[in-house]
Amino acid sequence: MKLATLRDGSPDGALAVVSTDLSRAVKATGVARSLLEAIESWDSSAPRLLEIAQRLNEGNVAGELDFAAANLGPPLPRTWQWLDGSAFHSHGELMQRVFKHSFLDDLRARPLMYQGGSDDFLGPGDDMPLPSEDDGIDFEAELAVITDRVPMGTSPANALEHVKLVMLANDASLRSHAVPEMKTGFGWIHAKPATSFSPVAVTPDELGTAWQDGRVILPMRVSWNGREFGHPDAGAMGFGFHALIAHAAYSRNLSAGTIIGSGTVSNDDYRIVGSACIAERRAIEIEDRGHAVTEYMRFGDRVRIEMLDARGNSIFGAIDQRVVPATR
Amino acid sequence: MKLATLRDGSPDGALAVVSTDLSRAVKATGVARSLLEAIESWDSSAPRLLEIAQRLNEGNVAGELDFAAANLGPPLPRTWQWLDGSAFHSHGELMQRVFKHSFLDDLRARPLMYQGGSDDFLGPGDDMPLPSEDDGIDFEAELAVITDRVPMGTSPANALEHVKLVMLANDASLRSHAVPEMKTGFGWIHAKPATSFSPVAVTPDELGTAWQDGRVILPMRVSWNGREFGHPDAGAMGFGFHALIAHAAYSRNLSAGTIIGSGTVSNDDYRIVGSACIAERRAIEIEDRGHAVTEYMRFGDRVRIEMLDARGNSIFGAIDQRVVPATR
Repeated sequence: MKLATLRDGSPDGALAVVSTDLSRAVKATGVARSLLEAIESWDSSAPRLLEIAQRLNEGNVAGELDFAAANLGPPLPRTWQWLDGSAFHSHGELMQRVFKHSFLDDLRARPLMYQGGSDDFLGPGDDMPLPSEDDGIDFEAELAVITDRVPMGTSPANALEHVKLVMLANDASLRSHAVPEMKTGFGWIHAKPATSFSPVAVTPDELGTAWQDGRVILPMRVSWNGREFGHPDAGAMGFGFHALIAHAAYSRNLSAGTIIGSGTVSNDDYRIVGSACIAERRAIEIEDRGHAVTEYMRFGDRVRIEMLDARGNSIFGAIDQRVVPATR
Repeated sequence: MKLATLRDGSPDGALAVVSTDLSRAVKATGVARSLLEAIESWDSSAPRLLEIAQRLNEGNVAGELDFAAANLGPPLPRTWQWLDGSAFHSHGELMQRVFKHSFLDDLRARPLMYQGGSDDFLGPGDDMPLPSEDDGIDFEAELAVITDRVPMGTSPANALEHVKLVMLANDASLRSHAVPEMKTGFGWIHAKPATSFSPVAVTPDELGTAWQDGRVILPMRVSWNGREFGHPDAGAMGFGFHALIAHAAYSRNLSAGTIIGSGTVSNDDYRIVGSACIAERRAIEIEDRGHAVTEYMRFGDRVRIEMLDARGNSIFGAIDQRVVPATR
């Protein structure tokens, strides 16, 4: 099934079930007010939501909405935890080579992961308000999963059962701040403004055979101002989501509603399939020509992130948003 | 006024108002179910809570409880964001000298800050379940503030008005993971298990003249297994909370309920006043004798963190807790 969050003035929004073809939706606030409430009571809420989804996919239901016209928030407008991995080795190793991150010498030995802000996410069509064009504004197209509660010490073998929903993310970065903040060792604050998510979050069964070994084996389609930027396969994760979840849960419980991200999607043949963030293209340019040619985003620029199934249908709907100057 | 959270089986607990002398409490769930709800509606809830606090401090009220016998959670059992600074220069510079963190060369130029897990906090008397004694288990005694919503771009001059409550924190660390995770540049995941907080969070006026320039000018009293470990003055923050909040809000809004921490309290004369974490004492030993003598915590060890006012009364109550092995 596919779930979305309608803006209704409340901080967590109103839960909706969306038809598989993304054409129609119906509020499901009788099951749980919000998706956060649903994930916190998944064992009881999921069967009831599935029943609504089945009726919606079989024909018209009372109170259904035109999904294209809905006022959409991100599936979780806020949640208790957002942990983002960097699971694509081709990306990490390129950045390490070009930017001489000698500290990343055990890149394939264990996952890289940072803790991001989870209090203020953006919806798929929201403008991204940012302080300055001088900050190196970048998009990052990623997969992300929403988990139920994961107890401390959960093994990779037992982690995948905790994945309840899958969605797309635009983990925006301010690259001018990224390396200085990495040098502190404390991770990113200035470099990581609000993350945006796709119109719907879907249960793994919606992915069919594309969901394998904690990965989604489908291209991530990224365009920038209407021009294709890349379509790397998201299945190339060096660590699957089960490994990322187990890494996150080594010394802590993960509350229900925790979002785990894959990091920027990247493939070994990035010179052919393109990239899912500008920083990677710039690194390729530095390797190939000695200097970066592609500039970062300007205010008014638009990024679009989408994933199609084998028949060409959008699975999650598209993230399609502009960067704009922040105003107080 | 002083606020606390009583455990009632719900994830956010039940809001209570506590008498200034910490002897008595009364539920305030008629104003807001939880402290998180109260901070999210602070303009309307604070005056009503203050009225309850005044009646409680003036004499007995209906339904009052013995606070010493209450089943206490942390003031916020979970919240949307936890950002911890490292604002004491004497600590940062010692660690830099001893552990050769050459990347921290602009330590006094701008605050260091990491994003921590905010989904699963511990109460002041809770056992701290941890995976292994081999991880270098450490306590860190800190001040922390709870803010209302802080808009992106808030200046230090305007940041202090967003501080609604102040409390103590034990930001436990697993030191064996700390430096390896710092070397990735991504910040800490394994090194940062659940943080614990004091019995009450207090409005800044409860601190009287000790609340100055975004700092609490009082000693942080730390003992380990019943022996005094240190009493450094918390007023020595190199950056006040206004600077930490403004740093956090450069490229993001901070939701109401955001907790900002000071980092381990530390003073220039740490050889005299002692330390607020074991790692600092070990660094002093390395400087003085060439090697660390003090070992990290063992299962069963107990840490106590408290702050007394000028008359010797406990302001926040004490964090007093044991480390124990995690069980699945």
